[in-house]
Amino acid sequence: MDNTNRKSEKDIFPQTYIVVEFGCDIKTETAQWLVDKISKKRKDGGAELLVRRQPATFGQNLTVHVSANIDKLLELAEELEVRKRDKNGILREFTVDEIDEFINNERDELLTTADRQVLVKHELENIRALSHEMCILGHMECPLYEGQSIMSACLHYGIVKQIYPLHDDELIKKLGHTWYMQFFQCPPFEDIRIYFGESIALYFQFLTFYTISLVAPTVLGFLQMFLYPGTLAFFCILNIICATLFLELWRRKCSELAFIWGTITMTSFDEPRPNFRGTMGKDAVTGKLLPQAPRFKTHLKMYCVSLPVVVVCMFGAFLVMLFAFWVEDHLRQIPNIPLWVIYIPSIVYAVLIYIMNLFYRRFATFLTEWENHRTQSQFDRHRVTKMVLFEFVNNFMSLFYIAFVIQDMDLLRYQLATLLIVLQALNNVQEAILPLLLRHYYLKVNIVVSNRRFQIRYEPTRIDKDRRGSIAKLKQYGRLVELVGVKELDPDDSRIAQAVSEGSLEKYEDPYDDYLELFVQFGYVFLFSAVYPMAAFWAFFNNFLELRSDAFKLCCICQRPMSRKVKDTGAWQRAFQALCALSVMTNCALLCLSPPLRSVAPELSPVAWVMCFVFLEHLLMGLRQVLHYAIPDKPEWVRVALAKGNYQSKQALK
Amino acid sequence: MDNTNRKSEKDIFPQTYIVVEFGCDIKTETAQWLVDKISKKRKDGGAELLVRRQPATFGQNLTVHVSANIDKLLELAEELEVRKRDKNGILREFTVDEIDEFINNERDELLTTADRQVLVKHELENIRALSHEMCILGHMECPLYEGQSIMSACLHYGIVKQIYPLHDDELIKKLGHTWYMQFFQCPPFEDIRIYFGESIALYFQFLTFYTISLVAPTVLGFLQMFLYPGTLAFFCILNIICATLFLELWRRKCSELAFIWGTITMTSFDEPRPNFRGTMGKDAVTGKLLPQAPRFKTHLKMYCVSLPVVVVCMFGAFLVMLFAFWVEDHLRQIPNIPLWVIYIPSIVYAVLIYIMNLFYRRFATFLTEWENHRTQSQFDRHRVTKMVLFEFVNNFMSLFYIAFVIQDMDLLRYQLATLLIVLQALNNVQEAILPLLLRHYYLKVNIVVSNRRFQIRYEPTRIDKDRRGSIAKLKQYGRLVELVGVKELDPDDSRIAQAVSEGSLEKYEDPYDDYLELFVQFGYVFLFSAVYPMAAFWAFFNNFLELRSDAFKLCCICQRPMSRKVKDTGAWQRAFQALCALSVMTNCALLCLSPPLRSVAPELSPVAWVMCFVFLEHLLMGLRQVLHYAIPDKPEWVRVALAKGNYQSKQALK
Repeated sequence: MDNTNRKSEKDIFPQTYIVVEFGCDIKTETAQWLVDKISKKRKDGGAELLVRRQPATFGQNLTVHVSANIDKLLELAEELEVRKRDKNGILREFTVDEIDEFINNERDELLTTADRQVLVKHELENIRALSHEMCILGHMECPLYEGQSIMSACLHYGIVKQIYPLHDDELIKKLGHTWYMQFFQCPPFEDIRIYFGESIALYFQFLTFYTISLVAPTVLGFLQMFLYPGTLAFFCILNIICATLFLELWRRKCSELAFIWGTITMTSFDEPRPNFRGTMGKDAVTGKLLPQAPRFKTHLKMYCVSLPVVVVCMFGAFLVMLFAFWVEDHLRQIPNIPLWVIYIPSIVYAVLIYIMNLFYRRFATFLTEWENHRTQSQFDRHRVTKMVLFEFVNNFMSLFYIAFVIQDMDLLRYQLATLLIVLQALNNVQEAILPLLLRHYYLKVNIVVSNRRFQIRYEPTRIDKDRRGSIAKLKQYGRLVELVGVKELDPDDSRIAQAVSEGSLEKYEDPYDDYLELFVQFGYVFLFSAVYPMAAFWAFFNNFLELRSDAFKLCCICQRPMSRKVKDTGAWQRAFQALCALSVMTNCALLCLSPPLRSVAPELSPVAWVMCFVFLEHLLMGLRQVLHYAIPDKPEWVRVALAKGNYQSKQALK
Repeated sequence: MDNTNRKSEKDIFPQTYIVVEFGCDIKTETAQWLVDKISKKRKDGGAELLVRRQPATFGQNLTVHVSANIDKLLELAEELEVRKRDKNGILREFTVDEIDEFINNERDELLTTADRQVLVKHELENIRALSHEMCILGHMECPLYEGQSIMSACLHYGIVKQIYPLHDDELIKKLGHTWYMQFFQCPPFEDIRIYFGESIALYFQFLTFYTISLVAPTVLGFLQMFLYPGTLAFFCILNIICATLFLELWRRKCSELAFIWGTITMTSFDEPRPNFRGTMGKDAVTGKLLPQAPRFKTHLKMYCVSLPVVVVCMFGAFLVMLFAFWVEDHLRQIPNIPLWVIYIPSIVYAVLIYIMNLFYRRFATFLTEWENHRTQSQFDRHRVTKMVLFEFVNNFMSLFYIAFVIQDMDLLRYQLATLLIVLQALNNVQEAILPLLLRHYYLKVNIVVSNRRFQIRYEPTRIDKDRRGSIAKLKQYGRLVELVGVKELDPDDSRIAQAVSEGSLEKYEDPYDDYLELFVQFGYVFLFSAVYPMAAFWAFFNNFLELRSDAFKLCCICQRPMSRKVKDTGAWQRAFQALCALSVMTNCALLCLSPPLRSVAPELSPVAWVMCFVFLEHLLMGLRQVLHYAIPDKPEWVRVALAKGNYQSKQALK
């Protein structure tokens, strides 16, 4: 029976977990070398995965499907310390020997689709250059160092065009029905996590949590419309307390989720990310052979190069903003100038921001890559920090300028309303409604194969029929590569069409843009709540739509993203906290500048009036600090469970 | 051989680790019951310790010496998870089976004197009331609940007068020679830890670290005397950065020490302190039978009762201060009043502070006890927090009043100089020089038997000689209690004299008073460094003496303190941090009020001038936050070592 099992395993190619599309000018020897690496035994430096190629097709790059059978996956799960709930409901690291303690019947049911994708991707990325491999075979111009991730290097040099997972038609259809099709229900977080992984599930948890916590400021905003303007300060304070509580409680919620998901134990000593550069050496913690690089070099680069450079960039963006305002100001002073000319600086500034952002993003990614952070979480944290600092200048500095230099509160209110209502609405349309319409009119109702860029349904041109005749032509395109020892997929296999169509979809790298949207919105709502208290309502309304449009985008418009494990919102938590601290200052300053409030105490000297608000600000800052200390990071039950785990493993060590 | 060993063990009573002195009206049945509890087998609710009584003596309460043989101690060390360095230098939990991996020859060398004390004390305190024991035997008025620590209850009800450890003559003499007798050397921290335990060693580490970090502000203070007064702001900023760095680096140092000492893994889930009230139940973490009480009740008590009460007390102390100033002000306005009358309010205020402090301390201890914190660290943290808040009002509010209400900088400078020079000098004299002189002139050169209260050398009046005749008299005093099954110490045993003499020495409960002294000094130095930059020098000078006088106090003047494990400076870290944050505000405010600085920019409007310093303050606050994030809590090597330990125990669990 074991024997037949083996045989059928060899014949049936399991579900495709990852698709590797090579560059259009791939050399046969390089492709053969890479494919061999994927399928070879570990002891020969391979990944022991299953590979099938797509039949060569006109207009298509060489593409291989990568999979693994369940035994291999379970083995990997043990090796990578995947945490699963056993039959007693206790979350612990899975081992193959104890598999019966984790599952009821089917070995298949243990690993989720996201798990498998992560495991296969990890193995692919973990194909590392051996000591004798000085460059990518056939590409002398692409050097390798010992221990470098070959797939990452190939992606970097363009030898591999892209690596992406395939959607699971059935699951995604089901998920979509309980998610973006349901307007008034919470997203199915657990299903999202199972399908898309922790990183995206966490984003939706955050978005939902944030949206719910906007209810209080929304109510406060409405209340204030009907009340005496002197109560403004009171509402402002409540708003700030709401924001602080939201962030503190989110931190708690986050650790709860991380515990349930088994990611709370992630540290900077976890396996390095594939692009981590270092010499192979014994890991200080695990003793495994892994790339090692001293952390102080990273710190040195961060503080001595990246930090000053980022500050200079921020300052540059600030100067550009000042210049735009200066030009606009000068134009206004020219008599009889047509109105449209006055808008030119704003438009040019907006375009400039877009271009600067484009360049800065690449630059930030490059810098962070150069800093050489060990884990993906560290990399993300430092990349996000760099980008958020720049985005902060671009998004908020002009508002600060209007509020505190020009001190034109009506203009500020108008700007805020425009940004919150028009821009957010446009954003939602662009993200969801436009593709929805496109899908409805141009495409058949096929959720997955909706290709935004081309809007055509892919029909593979099989080359089996006239293979001999067109080889020369194919060779000319560099797309016919004869691979030895790699079977082809059945030309009728639906995965071929799926891989081609999904390969051309837009990539969804990580939820950075989505977080950024919320970050900017959070700033609009809380930084200037003293001036425009209705902001909370519009933010709430937008997020309600955003919850669905983001879901739709993920399910139907973008390539399936790689599942990624995270334990918290990383740099975003701090970014939101910084914004919250800043909102204490801006609101106090706005209150101090508010004429209706000043008329409450006309007998106070200007200095005394300012000191009142400085005092209020310090009080609120102190309150934030007290709340921070009083609300523990982790709920009691999580701390107990973690302590229990620690205790048990300590007992085991004895 | 084993047999002879057994026999000699029974005959020879090992070193006394703990002395238990009963109250003067102890009943025979109660004493017998307690002594039985100490020596009985565990399964009968006893502690399995060795007990000998002191021969009954005139004027002495019933006193028993408690000890344990080395096997029992090693067993306890395993049970209480004492961490020791094995032969490979790895710190891990000791087990009796693996003892050969920890020691070279002697089983005796593994446990330090502080360890043994802790183990015996733990066992004593861990004698818990059984379900049928509703009260202390013979004392119906002293109820017990199941699981309550009987010794703690007896101490509380006065049935046991005191429990204290004895000094080790030889070790303390050696320690003294390398410590307070050496004026220009670092304290022998490791020896201190071995003898006095972690809590006191940490205090001396902190004091040394703080003193060293005062060098920079001292140099800055001297420099400033020779420079243009306009540079004041610059020096102030440097001072604040020094203080911030000191605190951040101390946190790091602290975790290093905690790691080396093996206390870094202490959590709030450790064994409860003896006074923790709760019903016996299975511990959620370890599954052991321990008193359990819901944490939310503690939180409820803390936030709903203690917090408001403490705030009211602080406010009360503040009002008392205001009243003193108000009276003084009124007295000054009376013409021809004699000068000494004007000083009356200050003197009365000082006396009032002393009395209020006395009451408040008891009250804070009572409140914290009532809050029912689980571990000693939590208890200490919340007790210290309460007391520090009150002390803050008493020590600094009058200076704030002088600085910001009266705005008399000369008076402030004068006050600071008085407090720093005169009071600190007096304090040192009281702590060390006075006892030193007393010791030199009144006592023989005997380090340990120096009894400050009576200054007499104890000569035991043996009652063996005329036992029959004086029994009636002794019974009258209630001090002759016949104990069954407890041997007496040899009447010539030197420990008897030692126990009597050390029993009457002043108690050194914990380093609270010493930390408080430093806290107040830190405030004087950094809160007002803009006004009196020389403060750092005087603080440095004082601490230099303090290092020796505290050492002398511990070695020669006080009862030997119970060794206690700690992992950090707990509430003091936050208290110092709060003071540091406050010093940013006060210094900016003082700079803003400084006339020579104002003359630098006379063209600025008052509001603009104030805003400059508000801006400076925010900048410094931001810098503090950035430093806080940039300097990790734990050094890299500690994090690696901890991760390694975790990894190994996780592997073991599998």
